[in-house]
Amino acid sequence: MATEQQHPDYDVFAAFCPSRNVFAELADKWSLLLLLSLHKLGEQRFSELQRSVVGVSRKMLTQTLRGLERDGLVRRTVHPETPPRVVYDLLPLGHSLAERVVPIAHWVEENSDSVLEARTEFDAAHGAACA
Amino acid sequence: MATEQQHPDYDVFAAFCPSRNVFAELADKWSLLLLLSLHKLGEQRFSELQRSVVGVSRKMLTQTLRGLERDGLVRRTVHPETPPRVVYDLLPLGHSLAERVVPIAHWVEENSDSVLEARTEFDAAHGAACA
Repeated sequence: MATEQQHPDYDVFAAFCPSRNVFAELADKWSLLLLLSLHKLGEQRFSELQRSVVGVSRKMLTQTLRGLERDGLVRRTVHPETPPRVVYDLLPLGHSLAERVVPIAHWVEENSDSVLEARTEFDAAHGAACA
Repeated sequence: MATEQQHPDYDVFAAFCPSRNVFAELADKWSLLLLLSLHKLGEQRFSELQRSVVGVSRKMLTQTLRGLERDGLVRRTVHPETPPRVVYDLLPLGHSLAERVVPIAHWVEENSDSVLEARTEFDAAHGAACA
């Protein structure tokens, strides 16, 4: 891995390193799914994001959006209408990360069958329905 | 996103879809860091993985390795020595996923400074040290 060549001071494996902290916060299903949705569909309101990322609770969506906004990946814009219209979209930094998440989503969509088969075999060999 | 073209039946956004479940389990910091470590350093014993992925507890490492083994990404091999030597390495499916995680680790290492600056600005604007 060319990691050290690209940024000799940062290492996602080292617990004390700032990049590890950043990696740990972003390597979360809701953060990654929100990035993918905003990258794919563009600007959305809170309710649209909630429909797009099925299963996310209001609380988790609020918290995850705030984290991504704080990280400089997502922009929250309040349009002064009546009632005010609040929309979220990706900043350039967010798009650049989302572009690197898309291949993982594609991998999952292409390889879910293999993973599910492996699970069935594993569970049969270990005599359990759950890992 | 070309997702639908590649696997029309699977959609990581849909809560009821098997690929969403696979995505949710893999989009976890410990799973991704373990994949990166095994991809970068190759076959490792439990204690080597624990040193490589700093901060992971024994319990979390055991649980995450078992999940990756169940998913067909990691192979656990017991060499019949005295005492038995247990090693973990990536199966081809694991390498193919890890290759797609490497660009995210690089992105984090290259952009941590921008993220940390954004956090400082956000916290100053919102009058809080925590999000």
